[in-house]
Amino acid sequence: MNLHISNILKDLEKDDFQAYLLTEFTNVEYISGYRPTSFAFCIIKENPVVYASGMDMELANKNSSIEVRKYESFEVIIDELKKESVKSLAIEPSLPFSTYVKIRDDFEVDSKTYVNRQRMIKTPSGIEKITKATEIAQESFKQLDILNNNCSEKEVAFDLVRHMIENGASKESFDTIVTSGASSSLPHAIPEDKKLSQPILVDWGAIYDGYCSDNTRTMVYTEFQHEIWDIVAEAHDKAIKAIRPGMKCCEVDKVARDIIEDYGYGDKFIHSTGHSLGLDIHESPGFSPRDETVIEKGMVLTVEPGIYLEGEFGVRLEDTVEINNGAKIIGNLPLMINE
Amino acid sequence: MNLHISNILKDLEKDDFQAYLLTEFTNVEYISGYRPTSFAFCIIKENPVVYASGMDMELANKNSSIEVRKYESFEVIIDELKKESVKSLAIEPSLPFSTYVKIRDDFEVDSKTYVNRQRMIKTPSGIEKITKATEIAQESFKQLDILNNNCSEKEVAFDLVRHMIENGASKESFDTIVTSGASSSLPHAIPEDKKLSQPILVDWGAIYDGYCSDNTRTMVYTEFQHEIWDIVAEAHDKAIKAIRPGMKCCEVDKVARDIIEDYGYGDKFIHSTGHSLGLDIHESPGFSPRDETVIEKGMVLTVEPGIYLEGEFGVRLEDTVEINNGAKIIGNLPLMINE
Repeated sequence: MNLHISNILKDLEKDDFQAYLLTEFTNVEYISGYRPTSFAFCIIKENPVVYASGMDMELANKNSSIEVRKYESFEVIIDELKKESVKSLAIEPSLPFSTYVKIRDDFEVDSKTYVNRQRMIKTPSGIEKITKATEIAQESFKQLDILNNNCSEKEVAFDLVRHMIENGASKESFDTIVTSGASSSLPHAIPEDKKLSQPILVDWGAIYDGYCSDNTRTMVYTEFQHEIWDIVAEAHDKAIKAIRPGMKCCEVDKVARDIIEDYGYGDKFIHSTGHSLGLDIHESPGFSPRDETVIEKGMVLTVEPGIYLEGEFGVRLEDTVEINNGAKIIGNLPLMINE
Repeated sequence: MNLHISNILKDLEKDDFQAYLLTEFTNVEYISGYRPTSFAFCIIKENPVVYASGMDMELANKNSSIEVRKYESFEVIIDELKKESVKSLAIEPSLPFSTYVKIRDDFEVDSKTYVNRQRMIKTPSGIEKITKATEIAQESFKQLDILNNNCSEKEVAFDLVRHMIENGASKESFDTIVTSGASSSLPHAIPEDKKLSQPILVDWGAIYDGYCSDNTRTMVYTEFQHEIWDIVAEAHDKAIKAIRPGMKCCEVDKVARDIIEDYGYGDKFIHSTGHSLGLDIHESPGFSPRDETVIEKGMVLTVEPGIYLEGEFGVRLEDTVEINNGAKIIGNLPLMINE
């Protein structure tokens, strides 16, 4: 039995649950090695099992390290749990209400984050893959020659994805953002059919062997854009330098936020300072004002302060860091591209 | 107030609910015109409102046809509902357990599919956009010259997406499947770094102005592959011909499934015959053995029977149909490509 599962079994015993139902694809993959393509129900107990859809049976049988059964109906799963005298069932916080309704009368149910909590601390192999994904993404960005690029936002985004795939990524880790001019004030801007204007903001990442990368660079041109860029860079650098195991995540957010507030742009920093990543592009914990999670060695998070001036432009600078005694930036792409 | 909302208000009144909480991005978009980029809470009641994340405020203010408020915390939403004396709250079946827990003590809660049920019947403009998305996707497929293509599966998938974007799609409607040889027996195969072998299966779609398309073609070569192709084509054609408003969805599935079973491949048809599409690539209802929904004019569904022979190959043929007095195939790409 793998270590991930035996850790969960200890969690279950401690909290007096007899089984743990997983449906999130990356949690199922973390436990079984098999990533579902449509749906799956993975149950962790003494004899763990994953119920795969008929469509996924070939894939599940090939990749799963735990027993695979073909999903027939949810009632069958409930019956099999009852036969094993399971009375208390832990679920993920994300379980849909419609599934919860099917189990609430038969089991004592509550949500637990056992798997997500384990996934906070990356394995050495996980960190290697995030690092490789970052290298691919950053190499691909350099190939764009963004400063001499006369294409549309959409074309640039497309070229970046092509480079990442040619360089070994399986795909982009999220919809690539290439935005410029006034639309850069939208943190999640969608690339448009218009030639690059100024400033240029690129937020992109690759997936390598299941693991994600995430970076943002903003290329600024006017004096005012440079002024804003410098503030964001200061928040980025000082937040990273401040990170230590034992600190709370919200304290890192505060370092970045205080700097931006001191310059008078507090209300223009409209998101958290960062998030964890791994098999998913957004994982827990995050460098957000409300996240009290204590930072530990082996965590991997983004640091990505930004300032967004509606109608004018936005600047965001993002690196992914690995926590050891401090925080080490993954990858080696300079923060300032157009110097 | 738009018609979508006034219909929901009638549903709520009939079932004695005072408000309806929506969090699915496409449901929020269907109601408000604004598609969230990270999260949102949309509440339908006499004075409907959408709580957008700070990050989305610029976008929401620009696109929403209903009142936009900035999300501060979930507690604020609960307080505002209580102030309006809301006591019973309808939710979506997909609402995460962790959100349900926050409301179950303050409101009478149950899940309803009011919006999804409305979305079953496409608006004329929705059908136009699905049709345009299909045209873009099929034109792009033709540009591949798949029969004389010496690229890898990954490269072909990539070229197909590039063509779709160049032809006006905002993006692919799901991860494009280009698979060949033995791996075509995986319904959700991931394109690999290997040259195309035989048969070749392509499952692809475009998004145009928010709406999805979906098609599959399989190019077969050996006599046995042709034999299987003919069975799947017969199931595809006869299922489409059988469709009438007033029938149940499961009856359409049975038409396709019976044909494949008669040829002895019943256990190799490992998924449903089809699904609705629109703002999402997978919507309700579906042509599945258990879906008793009565077919109505204005629905748009895929018909996509398949036979999957593990270790050998798979064949799937898929068109999207619009229901009027019968079923009309959207697009004009021949089913047989290599004749």
